[in-house]
Amino acid sequence: MSLGDDWFTEISEDAGSAFSLRVREKLHEERTPFQTIAIYDTQGFGRLMVIDGCTMLSSRENFLYHEMMAHPALFTHPAPRRVAIIGGGDCGTLREVLKHPEVEVATQIDIDERVTRLAEQYFPELTASNRDPRARLLFDDGIQWVRQAGPGGLDLIIVDSTDPVGPAEGLFSGAFYADCLRALGPGGLLVQQSESPLYHLPILREMHAAMRAAGFADTKTLFFPQTIYPSGWWSATLARQGAAIDGFRAQAAEVRGFETRYYNADIHRAALAAPEFFRRALQQTGNG
Amino acid sequence: MSLGDDWFTEISEDAGSAFSLRVREKLHEERTPFQTIAIYDTQGFGRLMVIDGCTMLSSRENFLYHEMMAHPALFTHPAPRRVAIIGGGDCGTLREVLKHPEVEVATQIDIDERVTRLAEQYFPELTASNRDPRARLLFDDGIQWVRQAGPGGLDLIIVDSTDPVGPAEGLFSGAFYADCLRALGPGGLLVQQSESPLYHLPILREMHAAMRAAGFADTKTLFFPQTIYPSGWWSATLARQGAAIDGFRAQAAEVRGFETRYYNADIHRAALAAPEFFRRALQQTGNG
Repeated sequence: MSLGDDWFTEISEDAGSAFSLRVREKLHEERTPFQTIAIYDTQGFGRLMVIDGCTMLSSRENFLYHEMMAHPALFTHPAPRRVAIIGGGDCGTLREVLKHPEVEVATQIDIDERVTRLAEQYFPELTASNRDPRARLLFDDGIQWVRQAGPGGLDLIIVDSTDPVGPAEGLFSGAFYADCLRALGPGGLLVQQSESPLYHLPILREMHAAMRAAGFADTKTLFFPQTIYPSGWWSATLARQGAAIDGFRAQAAEVRGFETRYYNADIHRAALAAPEFFRRALQQTGNG
Repeated sequence: MSLGDDWFTEISEDAGSAFSLRVREKLHEERTPFQTIAIYDTQGFGRLMVIDGCTMLSSRENFLYHEMMAHPALFTHPAPRRVAIIGGGDCGTLREVLKHPEVEVATQIDIDERVTRLAEQYFPELTASNRDPRARLLFDDGIQWVRQAGPGGLDLIIVDSTDPVGPAEGLFSGAFYADCLRALGPGGLLVQQSESPLYHLPILREMHAAMRAAGFADTKTLFFPQTIYPSGWWSATLARQGAAIDGFRAQAAEVRGFETRYYNADIHRAALAAPEFFRRALQQTGNG
């Protein structure tokens, strides 16, 4: 069975797999100084944003990714007041972060302002919190921003980026992790999207090793479904300054005063469970 | 970007999505009295079995599904001695079941002998335990087999079937669940593949309701990744006769004397965590 012209398809070359969504209409396409952004109206997933040919988010299921990029890290930190989001231009992660009343400042640094402008237009539900007085939107190089940040001034850094090729490559480097560590206060957390456990195990191993080599005291991966990303199974990796990632504010997570669709305290615990093959792979590199 | 002729594609019509694997060669195709079975050699997923156009299993990642269809239920029962597998003709679930030394008899009842013969030929690693003296392979109608089974003679029934259309439809009915309940001993368990949490929530709700209406004391869904199935996110639903699904033999699961690639005690606990939207959906039907 082959797909007609009315489908958007992302091919994962190395895996030899592809994921497709049936498209009603291409609503927008532009080449920015950084990347090519396209917006589609799909049959079953609402709107779809594509950057450089890779699916970024859909209306239907971005809640899986955005909730898991925000809430586990925020409920792990005892008092997350100062948050930075590197990338995240669609503002979906920012929206989740701002649901936490403890947050005093959330600074989002995305290199490409057009991602945010298109999100405002095509995914207004994600940008609904952008006028929150605690939100700061910067359009700048996130790597440089972290390098120049004052020491110990952040409680949480969320790296919500594209894949580790092209503009985002530097976000998966030891130098960047060392800058993050310096910018974080005691017990501060870094959480970074870390690709598919099935397709990208070597990337995940390298991330754990590089985060620990940079001086983070502990690292742990969160696993969750992300249906439009390659393999449908995704991850985010936590790294903590000077302390173990051990427990979280479970009571606060259970009675949280805001709506979620995927996250809850049970899901938080569950996301930290490492599959047997993953556990073995990390033990082999001494990061188990 | 469109896919050439060298791809196998499964379209999920209602969701408007599709998953594809790049194919090196079609190794086999036949029409049995029950269905059409095809075997492909893929670029990145090893061999692929397709039934009536739906992906059934690949060499690369069938461990996710087969382990989760077997081990959580087996470690939940205090002494699983007598097991029946309805469907499961590829024998991957049977292989996992036979890893448990407590199992005295494992009877697999698949309506289509050709699935097993092709698995022997193209997925020999899955059929490696078929000569275990505890294994009984029957090629018959599983619905009828359960209806005629003696009362209370089974500890565990695993329903490892295709989607609830065509030959498998009767496996998702109240009448079948009532027969299963009768065939199970005290505290006995039924576990059934229950489709995608994202795509098939109504089916899952109906299953919980039908299992409870049939007289099962408790029901719980297990969530796990299954990358070649629609949405990449899959589930299996447990139902228990006369007892709550509450805890499992965690110590035995931790020190299990056999190899797994996905399952471990942490994954067992994690798989039982219900996403917030799922919890709400089940509460609405009074099965939360």
